[in-house]
Amino acid sequence: MTLHDYLAHQQQLVDAQLDRLVPPETTPPETIHRAMRYSLFAGGKRIRPILCLEAARTVSDSAEGVFPVACALELVHTYSLIHDDLPALDNDDYRRGKLTNHKVFGDAMAILAGDALLTLAFEVLAKVEAPPGRKIRLIAELAAAAGTVGGMIGGQVADLEGEGKAPEPELLRTIHTAKTGAMLRASLRMGVVFAGGTKAQYNALSAYGEHIGLAFQIVDDILDVEQSSAALGKTAGKDAAQHKITFPAVYGLETSHRMAEEQCAHAHRVLAPFGDRARRLNELADHIVHRKS
Amino acid sequence: MTLHDYLAHQQQLVDAQLDRLVPPETTPPETIHRAMRYSLFAGGKRIRPILCLEAARTVSDSAEGVFPVACALELVHTYSLIHDDLPALDNDDYRRGKLTNHKVFGDAMAILAGDALLTLAFEVLAKVEAPPGRKIRLIAELAAAAGTVGGMIGGQVADLEGEGKAPEPELLRTIHTAKTGAMLRASLRMGVVFAGGTKAQYNALSAYGEHIGLAFQIVDDILDVEQSSAALGKTAGKDAAQHKITFPAVYGLETSHRMAEEQCAHAHRVLAPFGDRARRLNELADHIVHRKS
Repeated sequence: MTLHDYLAHQQQLVDAQLDRLVPPETTPPETIHRAMRYSLFAGGKRIRPILCLEAARTVSDSAEGVFPVACALELVHTYSLIHDDLPALDNDDYRRGKLTNHKVFGDAMAILAGDALLTLAFEVLAKVEAPPGRKIRLIAELAAAAGTVGGMIGGQVADLEGEGKAPEPELLRTIHTAKTGAMLRASLRMGVVFAGGTKAQYNALSAYGEHIGLAFQIVDDILDVEQSSAALGKTAGKDAAQHKITFPAVYGLETSHRMAEEQCAHAHRVLAPFGDRARRLNELADHIVHRKS
Repeated sequence: MTLHDYLAHQQQLVDAQLDRLVPPETTPPETIHRAMRYSLFAGGKRIRPILCLEAARTVSDSAEGVFPVACALELVHTYSLIHDDLPALDNDDYRRGKLTNHKVFGDAMAILAGDALLTLAFEVLAKVEAPPGRKIRLIAELAAAAGTVGGMIGGQVADLEGEGKAPEPELLRTIHTAKTGAMLRASLRMGVVFAGGTKAQYNALSAYGEHIGLAFQIVDDILDVEQSSAALGKTAGKDAAQHKITFPAVYGLETSHRMAEEQCAHAHRVLAPFGDRARRLNELADHIVHRKS
C-alpha cells in the first residue's frame, strides 16, 4: 500500500474512533457537542494520532487497543486550534478552508468547546483498556506535553510574547520545541508507553519525535512564506504580518530548507535499530518534510 | 476550635499546597505562571478542597495525603472562573473585589491561564501518592464532573442558552445540578475515593454533596438579589439584568430560603450514620446556607 493510501485508511480509522468517543450532537446540551464535532471533523490530517499508532506498532504486535490513546492526542490538538484561532489570540477566520469555530458558534461556545475537548481527552485516557499504572503514565505524558513548562501552552505564550522581538535562534528553538514539538514527541511516547515498549525504545522514538517535530515546524514556517492561502486552507503570510519569529526570518529560506532535510536525516538515523518495523515512521518523516500544505 | 478558625486554618494548608503545586512566577514563561497564580491566590474560600479533605477524614484516619487531590479541584474551579469572567462569557470586571484575570493580563493570557490550570489539575492527580487504580478513579471523577454531559461545562452551556427562556423549575434544576453541583459532589467523592472508603460511604457523601450543592446555588441566587456588590465582591443583581433562570425568579425569595433550609436538613440526615466523624461536614452544611457572601 502506498503511504498516501495507508494514511487515508488510518485517518478513517481514527475518525471512526473519534466519532465513538465524543458525545453525539443529539446529547444535551446539543450546541457544545456540535461545536466540538465541527472542529474535530474539519479535515484534520490526524498526524499526532497516526504517529502514536505507528509508535505502538513499531514496538508491539498487539497494539490495536491504542486507538483511544491516539484520539486523546487529537482532542488536545483540536482544542488548541480552536483557542488559538480566537479573536483574542490569532484572530483567524479560516482553518483548513472552513470557517473557524468561533466564526460559526461564537466566541463563548468556542472557548467552552476547547475546554470540553481538553477535559474529554483525560476522561478518554482514564477509560483506555490498559493496566492502571500505564494509564497514569499516559495521562502524565499528555498533561506535561500540553502544559506550561516546556509544553504546548508554554510555547504558545513564548510565541505571543516573542512577536516583534529580535529573531534570535535560541528563542526560536525554545518556542517551537514547546509549541509543537512537545505534543508531537508525546504522540510517539504515548504509543510506546501504551504498547509496553522498553526504555531504549521510548528514548529512540522520543528522539525521532523531536527531529520530525522540528522539521514539521520549519516546513510550516516555509509554507507560510511560499504557499498561497488557497493551497494552505488558511491565511498565508500571517507570520511576517504579525512579526512572528520564524525559521525563514532567522535563517533565510534556503538554510531553512536544508535544516528541515537535516532533521529528517536525523529521524531516519534514530529509527535504524527498528529495521523494517519502522518503515511507516521513516516514510512519515519524508512526508512531513516534503508536504505542500 | 470554632468552624471559622478551623476553616481559616484549612485554607492556609490548602494555599500552601497550591503554592507548591503551581510553577513559581520565576519559571518561564513567567507571564502565564503570574496569571495562573493571580487568580488562584485571589482570596478563594477553598470550599471544594475543604469538602474533599473532610470527606477523606470522615472515612479514614490516615488521609492527610489527600491535599493534592483537594488542590486539583481548586485548579479546575479557578480555571472555570477565569473563563466565565471573559468578555465573551459573563464579561465581569471584578471577582472577590479584585480585577478579573483578563482585566489584568488581557484576554489571550486569561484564556491560556485557564487552559493551563485545567491541564495542571490532571498532571497533579497523575502524581498523587496513591495506588494507580485509585488515581485513575480520581481522574475519571474530575473529568466527568468538569465535562459536558451532566458536568460543569454542560451546565455553563445550558445556563448561557437558558438566558431569556421561561423560568421553568426543571430547566433550573438541570442547569445547577450540572453547573455547580457536579464539581461539589465530585469534591466529596474524590475525598472518599482517595481515602479508600466503601461504596456505601461513597453513596452517602455523594448524596450529601448533592444536597449542599443545591443549597449552595440557591443561596448564591438569593445573595445576588439581597446583597450589595460591595458585600459580594462582585457585581450584584447581574442575574436579573441578564435574565438568568434563578431560584428566586422561579420560586420567589421566601420559598427559595425555605428550599435551602430543606436541602441543609437532607444533608444532615445522610450524614447521620457517620456520627461525630462528620461533625465538620455538618457544620459546613449550615455554614453554606447561612453565609452572607
